[in-house]
Amino acid sequence: MKELKKITVIGIGLLGGSLTLSILRSFSGIKVVGFSHRSSTRQKARQLALASEICDTLPQSVADADIVILSTPVCTFEEIFGQIADYLKPGCIVTDVGSTKACIHRWAAKKLPSSAYYVGSHPIAGSEQRGLEFARDDLFDGALCILTTVKSTNLQAVDTLADFWNALGCRIVKMTPAVHDKVYANVSHIPHITAAALVNASSSEFLKFAGKGFIDTTRISSGPANIWADILVTNAENCAKGIDSVTEELNKIKKAVLSGDIKLIEKLLSKAGKKRAAMINQKIQQKEILS
Amino acid sequence: MKELKKITVIGIGLLGGSLTLSILRSFSGIKVVGFSHRSSTRQKARQLALASEICDTLPQSVADADIVILSTPVCTFEEIFGQIADYLKPGCIVTDVGSTKACIHRWAAKKLPSSAYYVGSHPIAGSEQRGLEFARDDLFDGALCILTTVKSTNLQAVDTLADFWNALGCRIVKMTPAVHDKVYANVSHIPHITAAALVNASSSEFLKFAGKGFIDTTRISSGPANIWADILVTNAENCAKGIDSVTEELNKIKKAVLSGDIKLIEKLLSKAGKKRAAMINQKIQQKEILS
Repeated sequence: MKELKKITVIGIGLLGGSLTLSILRSFSGIKVVGFSHRSSTRQKARQLALASEICDTLPQSVADADIVILSTPVCTFEEIFGQIADYLKPGCIVTDVGSTKACIHRWAAKKLPSSAYYVGSHPIAGSEQRGLEFARDDLFDGALCILTTVKSTNLQAVDTLADFWNALGCRIVKMTPAVHDKVYANVSHIPHITAAALVNASSSEFLKFAGKGFIDTTRISSGPANIWADILVTNAENCAKGIDSVTEELNKIKKAVLSGDIKLIEKLLSKAGKKRAAMINQKIQQKEILS
Repeated sequence: MKELKKITVIGIGLLGGSLTLSILRSFSGIKVVGFSHRSSTRQKARQLALASEICDTLPQSVADADIVILSTPVCTFEEIFGQIADYLKPGCIVTDVGSTKACIHRWAAKKLPSSAYYVGSHPIAGSEQRGLEFARDDLFDGALCILTTVKSTNLQAVDTLADFWNALGCRIVKMTPAVHDKVYANVSHIPHITAAALVNASSSEFLKFAGKGFIDTTRISSGPANIWADILVTNAENCAKGIDSVTEELNKIKKAVLSGDIKLIEKLLSKAGKKRAAMINQKIQQKEILS
């Protein structure tokens, strides 16, 4: 791996804090710098010794960094790219842990200097919990990490980043930002929207009778609303299409139910059951989940 | 409690088998009779000693029973009521473990003799697993059991059934079948439909990238399709209304996403998060779930 001397993490919540802790655990002799725009967060991060150094300003935090990782809500990235642009050393790799990618690639091309190399990262790790108090140095162990690249992406920077995430325990898959955003609309953003819609469509009065099924089906809707608002708005077209697809499937079931067509209802439910079973079996085979 | 000498369970899958085992565990000196229309199931049930006796015919199984409990898919109930009607002893309590209730009350009124007392039961217990191999004698421990009654329901029969379910470890809540079906459309049937729609709207190719969020959100869609088809078709109006409500909430989010209104997206997501948190807190307080 290219020798890394300084890595900067901008934003030190659950994910950013877990990142600084994981880097400290996995690399020796490296300076891990954290930045938060909130002084209270910086203070807490210093108390918890989340990084080698917690900086008070963005320019100071990114100076001489080999890798800069943005770990704030996605919609802050464009501004942060602009704020750090003049302070990045030539050859610095800039990445992020955001859940959408096409938007970020566009902002990076517009705001970052050509002497810095942007590659998108999306480690599939997290929690409904939030805040640096919940940071863990093993959050990325065994996680999938998507790297997103476009034609102009520097390939050496991609290799360096792949080695970096590997060192934290991640498996790497590369794709374009466009494909990434389609895939994660399907497997993450639409489920989040659907879970929220299901809760919002519910009667608070009735929810006292809810069992484990309802609790599990809606768990993800307890994620931080501001972070998710940023994710959805930066993947708007894919989310809108996905909502239409879910609505279409809902209406197929509605039509079958209202017409009393038991065989059709059973067919639609059975299709879902089989598709999910195939997914689960694949994940068991690949040891992503236990059987 | 009224002295019970014989209890019959019709249908001995996961739920029916757990029922016979739980009765054997909780009552002494009682005859627990099981019936299945499949000889292979009867054979397995005998091998597993799931009941005091496994009968080959319905009339034989219900003869002299103090309580008869239907535990087959809901849409078989009307026919079974007709088949057992002439063989029930006067004062026999007939109930079931079906997930919808209004329909069953109508069938009972139509098919059962006035000398038998129908009360609806809906123990909130189960599993995605199916078949008597998975039967457990503690499935009802701590479960909620809804009893449904109408104006003509025999109150002594309700008391006897409440005592019966209490003895198996259930908490009792009474409501009308109409209210029951509205509540469970909301907290169970609509989530099931939504989970199935979400899977059906997904690309199999993309599902290999799904994480824990997708897996949890869709877990219930792996339930047995034939049993769920019966549930949905016998609660069609409430399900259709619920689908419309979910669709409406989905479209609110779609509109906010497409218009780039981050504050509105955040508000809609936050509303769901708070509503779910209130539900979870209530369940923790009532010790239904651990904190």
